[in-house]
Amino acid sequence: MSELAVVSLSGGMDSCVTAAMAKAQGFELALLHADYGQRTQEREKQAFRDIAEFYGVPASRRLIIGFDTLKAIGGSALTDASIALPEGELDRPGVPVSYVPFRNAHLLATCVSWAEVLGATAIFVGFVEEDSSGYPDCREAFLRSFEQTANLGTKPETNLAFHAPLLHLRKAEIVAKGRELGAPLHLTWSCYQSEQEACGHCDSCHLRLRGFQQAGFPDPIPYAFIPDSLKV
Amino acid sequence: MSELAVVSLSGGMDSCVTAAMAKAQGFELALLHADYGQRTQEREKQAFRDIAEFYGVPASRRLIIGFDTLKAIGGSALTDASIALPEGELDRPGVPVSYVPFRNAHLLATCVSWAEVLGATAIFVGFVEEDSSGYPDCREAFLRSFEQTANLGTKPETNLAFHAPLLHLRKAEIVAKGRELGAPLHLTWSCYQSEQEACGHCDSCHLRLRGFQQAGFPDPIPYAFIPDSLKV
Repeated sequence: MSELAVVSLSGGMDSCVTAAMAKAQGFELALLHADYGQRTQEREKQAFRDIAEFYGVPASRRLIIGFDTLKAIGGSALTDASIALPEGELDRPGVPVSYVPFRNAHLLATCVSWAEVLGATAIFVGFVEEDSSGYPDCREAFLRSFEQTANLGTKPETNLAFHAPLLHLRKAEIVAKGRELGAPLHLTWSCYQSEQEACGHCDSCHLRLRGFQQAGFPDPIPYAFIPDSLKV
Repeated sequence: MSELAVVSLSGGMDSCVTAAMAKAQGFELALLHADYGQRTQEREKQAFRDIAEFYGVPASRRLIIGFDTLKAIGGSALTDASIALPEGELDRPGVPVSYVPFRNAHLLATCVSWAEVLGATAIFVGFVEEDSSGYPDCREAFLRSFEQTANLGTKPETNLAFHAPLLHLRKAEIVAKGRELGAPLHLTWSCYQSEQEACGHCDSCHLRLRGFQQAGFPDPIPYAFIPDSLKV
């Protein structure tokens, strides 16, 4: 029997390609999705379901978790409507206002708890260090430290290997990898701002569009607007 | 102005004495309580409120968080009614069935997120290593690893010191310390099983009663039953 991997699947492109890579490595998938009060959470949840269907993952290995915790704590433009989301400022220094304080620790802790109950041996996350250098909880040093903490804080028989196969890839390489593995990129959602058509204005849209442009393929999802500079 | 400490306050004796120690060290208190579907969560929440009142902590520095996550994941006698709670087997080896998979990572992650938003500089938890040696996520090695992970995964200006002042104390020493600091032990709740009167049967009641007995004081909370061997 195949080993089981818990994959954190936001519904975005990165996590979708991560799931495709776990599958390609021979793991059975257990898919975990977190709502943390982000503006586009319904659309992301739909993307999660669509991708889970695509990979034939049964209901017992899908888990949607509500992180009301992070909404209650606030402090981020993603979860607090009173903080404006930035547009088109991808290269400014410092921690972005869309940073949700220590969010990925909550996400990883949930992956670990579920993995321990399921008897999974691996955890896959779609962290991308370069594109997200402003987010302290997306870096490899954080991930490796969390992995060590997880193995100290769980049962002796629980041994979890953390995989972040996109960590050192650029967006264009992620697009190419997704296409190579037949990942359902048309089912993914990345926009932070809108749920019907991607806005084409927010940082997340810009990153994604730039990735497709550099990979030389059109993005298959609908956009309300695409800046001329990011058209393929 | 005093520095601010986030204190994880379950409402049990250990966390109450921990809050008293943070206060005695000069910190202003921000009190965090987690519901994770445990059987006695209403009674514990009451204890949390009573202790917060006792210390005059304002509403803006109290946070009650629902960890539906852990209930959804299950795998513990504390959150899953189909798994029986053990009674009077304090010294058996291995991880107890009351272990909630990786629970303390969720708790600490929440403390960190809130501390980052509040600008707190310290986190206090009531971990007790000796009494809880079966719980992998109560050990000092886990706590120190989490502390390091937290400082890697938060903003550069966020520097959090983790304090677990009871880590190497025995229950009798915790009782004595609480009395010395005037901690409101009469407002605390430890029983895992009952909400009106403590059952006197569960592991948590036994540990607590043994602590008071060894400290030479009667426990001020009501019990439905006290084993002869644990009477003062």
